Amino acid sequence: MKRREFLKSAGGATGAAVAATALAKPAIAQSKRELKMVMTWPKNLPALGVGAQRLARRIEQFSDGQLTVKVYGGGELVPPFEVFDAVSGGTADMYHSASYYFQGKSQAFNFFTTVPYGLTASEATAWVRFGGGQELWDELSAGFNMKPFLVGNTGVQMGGWFAKEIQSLDDFKGLKFRAPGLGGEVFRQVGVAVTNLPPAEILPALQSGAIDGTEWVSPYSDLSFGFYKVVKYYYYPGIHEPGSMLDFSVNLDVWNSLTETQQEVIRAATEAENDLVFAEFNARNSQALDSLINEHGVQLRQFSKDILQALGEAAGKVLAEAAASDDITRRVYESYIGFRKNALRWSRYGEQEFLQARLLPFKY
Amino acid sequence: MKRREFLKSAGGATGAAVAATALAKPAIAQSKRELKMVMTWPKNLPALGVGAQRLARRIEQFSDGQLTVKVYGGGELVPPFEVFDAVSGGTADMYHSASYYFQGKSQAFNFFTTVPYGLTASEATAWVRFGGGQELWDELSAGFNMKPFLVGNTGVQMGGWFAKEIQSLDDFKGLKFRAPGLGGEVFRQVGVAVTNLPPAEILPALQSGAIDGTEWVSPYSDLSFGFYKVVKYYYYPGIHEPGSMLDFSVNLDVWNSLTETQQEVIRAATEAENDLVFAEFNARNSQALDSLINEHGVQLRQFSKDILQALGEAAGKVLAEAAASDDITRRVYESYIGFRKNALRWSRYGEQEFLQARLLPFKY
Repeated sequence: MKRREFLKSAGGATGAAVAATALAKPAIAQSKRELKMVMTWPKNLPALGVGAQRLARRIEQFSDGQLTVKVYGGGELVPPFEVFDAVSGGTADMYHSASYYFQGKSQAFNFFTTVPYGLTASEATAWVRFGGGQELWDELSAGFNMKPFLVGNTGVQMGGWFAKEIQSLDDFKGLKFRAPGLGGEVFRQVGVAVTNLPPAEILPALQSGAIDGTEWVSPYSDLSFGFYKVVKYYYYPGIHEPGSMLDFSVNLDVWNSLTETQQEVIRAATEAENDLVFAEFNARNSQALDSLINEHGVQLRQFSKDILQALGEAAGKVLAEAAASDDITRRVYESYIGFRKNALRWSRYGEQEFLQARLLPFKY
Repeated sequence: MKRREFLKSAGGATGAAVAATALAKPAIAQSKRELKMVMTWPKNLPALGVGAQRLARRIEQFSDGQLTVKVYGGGELVPPFEVFDAVSGGTADMYHSASYYFQGKSQAFNFFTTVPYGLTASEATAWVRFGGGQELWDELSAGFNMKPFLVGNTGVQMGGWFAKEIQSLDDFKGLKFRAPGLGGEVFRQVGVAVTNLPPAEILPALQSGAIDGTEWVSPYSDLSFGFYKVVKYYYYPGIHEPGSMLDFSVNLDVWNSLTETQQEVIRAATEAENDLVFAEFNARNSQALDSLINEHGVQLRQFSKDILQALGEAAGKVLAEAAASDDITRRVYESYIGFRKNALRWSRYGEQEFLQARLLPFKY
């Protein structure tokens, strides 16, 4: 997924004071207002930018003319990864992004996108909506003067693209591989020379040999980036990002100035978006995987058990370290890990064993 | 899941003419209106009735006072399984139910709930929203003067409750088992003496020995019904219902009389509901499975490979027979099977292999 290293900007928490003075706070807002929505993605990026625009249109349509939403693609009003500070500080009213880009503010933000060997899309939605996740997210984001919403999911990602087959842990040693965030940290723990690159630089780096491989998202997104033109081994499973949530955050003063109905409209629209974005990824990934294999000669390969085991050990260590970084991260970690324990069992006896049985060779 | 044999009422298709005369069709409705929503479930049934009530509240809130929704639980205005005819004919304006209850109208309705060895919740949502499913559903339901929406999913269900272990296909012969619909037909094909019973009669029938076992939904729902008090073997996977969609259908004349904004509000609210209901089932199933095992001594058991294979062969046959029943069922079947082919591969390399890897014994 599109990411980069932590933002280096100075403390977003101080933005609260700025925003509070910038906006009036009527008990019930009745005047017509134009809200500014910024995002990390290009406006027309399938599923993500497109979803953000649909969300904006719906907020306008449902507000009965009270709200208009001006949408800015990544880089139009502020740079793609500065949307957090922009909304926190009141330069913009809301952003559409993924919260792990902002792990420099707190490691806790990772858990509101995805963490290695963590929850799948369905499980993560269940945790946020019915497992205490939203309450912790609200608390975390309130510290930066924002109100966050879950607004989409990529589903399980693929393990990445490699020039050569990865047959053992030894093949990871010194391998130059592009992977950001906690997932990158997990690969680093097993000897990979992890680098990070902005999206536009990945394909050229593969072509020049500057990197030996890269992770990105899943077949739908990866096909359009054309990595198959240079590297042919496409690995699964993508344990570093098992279900990446998207994040729609609203400046808290703006949020508090909305009417209850406007708030409920926004809430419902984000819930609808979560449903639509995940469905689109699922539908398009199915088709794109077929195209990669049958039209572009891509070779699917599975990480071996000892590699997956080593990545799991590394993930456990990386997460525990993140949890120790501040109080809220520790509490988010404990909630997430507790939910995962039961979710893992239910997913096994529900979804997983069904998927396994469905592969039996019966005529259908 | 709550179901029963086909409704026996005479042709719902004729209801279109009745409804068309019952309602005025202004170009844009501006007058305040009260809409009647009926449902198959009791009003306060967790996830289902509760979700239907949330949907009604949102339609009211977002319509800016133009629409009020009067909600009737199952049996209050019309009997639980007569909601289809009621909305088709204009006695009520919309219903919340599951479309396979109405397979007596056309076998095609099965595919808009679930079919044995079919799509999971995530895959089914992808098919409806981005794989051509909604268009076919619209066509099917328009023949009965209704506009249908996907409004929730139970996820993969469990295989059912049994008094004795099922160790081979022989143990199925003559077993008295409660299972409705196409799933029931699949069990019948392998020798099970399938019966159907309304929900309230299941536990007494288990207690008296009138039946040897029953399927229902999944841990969250099954725990509350108390089957564990009588039978202790709880089987997985539930290949007969791998992801049951809920159905919210609106009388087509009512739908056409709504403003574009009112239509979009309803659409967004159903999308949000789909997200919420599935998330609630996932969260509660996790907890309930833990309770069944650790507090109620329930024994989890897996259907053997030869049983799952035989059920698969039976499912293929049952679906092909259903597809031959009328033209629209054949087209729905072909769309569904085509989508499933690619979805099956993506789910394998995405979700399934991740779930498998996550079970490795690393410290986390």
